[in-house]
Amino acid sequence: MKTRFILINTSHAGNVGGTARAMKVMGFTDLVLVAPRWANVLNREETIQRSSGALDILKNARVVETVEEALDGMTHLCATAMTPRDFGPPTVTPRAHFAALTSPAANESYQRPESVAFLFGSERFGMQNEDVYRCHACLSIPTDPKFGSLNLAAAVQLIAYDWREALGGFAVQSATPPARQADAAEVAGMLKHWEQALAEIGFLDPQAPKKLMPRLNQLFNRAQLSSEEIHILRGVAKAMSQAASKPGEEMAAVLPLTPAASSAAK
Amino acid sequence: MKTRFILINTSHAGNVGGTARAMKVMGFTDLVLVAPRWANVLNREETIQRSSGALDILKNARVVETVEEALDGMTHLCATAMTPRDFGPPTVTPRAHFAALTSPAANESYQRPESVAFLFGSERFGMQNEDVYRCHACLSIPTDPKFGSLNLAAAVQLIAYDWREALGGFAVQSATPPARQADAAEVAGMLKHWEQALAEIGFLDPQAPKKLMPRLNQLFNRAQLSSEEIHILRGVAKAMSQAASKPGEEMAAVLPLTPAASSAAK
Repeated sequence: MKTRFILINTSHAGNVGGTARAMKVMGFTDLVLVAPRWANVLNREETIQRSSGALDILKNARVVETVEEALDGMTHLCATAMTPRDFGPPTVTPRAHFAALTSPAANESYQRPESVAFLFGSERFGMQNEDVYRCHACLSIPTDPKFGSLNLAAAVQLIAYDWREALGGFAVQSATPPARQADAAEVAGMLKHWEQALAEIGFLDPQAPKKLMPRLNQLFNRAQLSSEEIHILRGVAKAMSQAASKPGEEMAAVLPLTPAASSAAK
Repeated sequence: MKTRFILINTSHAGNVGGTARAMKVMGFTDLVLVAPRWANVLNREETIQRSSGALDILKNARVVETVEEALDGMTHLCATAMTPRDFGPPTVTPRAHFAALTSPAANESYQRPESVAFLFGSERFGMQNEDVYRCHACLSIPTDPKFGSLNLAAAVQLIAYDWREALGGFAVQSATPPARQADAAEVAGMLKHWEQALAEIGFLDPQAPKKLMPRLNQLFNRAQLSSEEIHILRGVAKAMSQAASKPGEEMAAVLPLTPAASSAAK
């Protein structure tokens, strides 16, 4: 959906740069500045530094004199305003409002907009009432009532994030390929191996085993072992047995005898 | 739930201040810095400026030398790392992971932690593998694959927001008292009033009304009129009639005749 971010009377160049970056990481590109404090804000050093490479957003940004000019072509206007007001658009949380705007049900009714603009007031004074009155909704980010002072670029980041998520979101890449889970038979076989090895190294007394093996079984159940980890744990059991059968030798000497385990652990 | 934010090897003082502010607006207070670039970062001017009043967070923050020291007492560790890794904790989105951690079902299983720490690597190099390996989950904020470079304080802001929401969230205060909706009879009565007034001012031809009144009916239906707005619209109709009955007079002279409408519009 066509989306625009509009900063009104922004004072800090860093916030303009931070806004460009916050938009770009969420895949939005349309930025309009209304009467910023610095006419050259798009080219200031602090802006460029804080944008951290979101230069195309800055390059394509428009600077206009009035809110009207910033709103051309936009159908649904969301104010972001913290101040309570006696009168104005309904106060809604971004997440709930965006869910309503993008729900499949809304598509059939009058609620689904063709385009959405998010308006942000100045760092110091927020939005003017006359600008809030133009809007369809007043977004309120749920913050600690004792300290609701969000940074401007941080507010843009949260709105951009929630809106992108509502629009379907970006996928995250799982770096770790899914591991094959060990089945109950593999776990039981590994535990048998450990039981024997723990007896050999003198930690488990076969005459009075108590609840040691069931306890380990529960621990390994919670760990949701993979087949690869079964191999590692069997390698450990094997090394315990070998260490027990060579009393007096240095433990270090045992390590080279477990190539399977050490390769599996890599 | 006990929650800690841990910044590892942070370079920019502004990000420490921004982190303190981001935490505080979401109601979190426990900040630990591991080997920051500036030993005095908590007292630097840029830190204090960007914290924008979150001074208690800075005052109570700890600076430690190692990640181990930062983790004392924390049971569930969430890395924030963008880099793909061949091996490590599962990559999850914050929202999905937090929902799983806080679901009522998780309370009965082993998944619900007693405390949660969020670990953030340096601005330049992210987290080291050895620190990621300690963690239970690797949080990946869903960003545009073509530009995933989130600012550190912005990442803290998003994680803090999602975690606070998962914990139940803060309420937002609706500034506008809910309006009483006009019922269908009130709308129909107002439309009758308008129909008459529009005929009087010559906009509606009673001999050929076409679909004007049904169109206005649809418009007002979508607007979900309040009872107060019915009064305003009836006042407008009344003023139209009065204007029509005094041809030649200035329109301005009509205004004082509609005290009900103008007081309702206040």
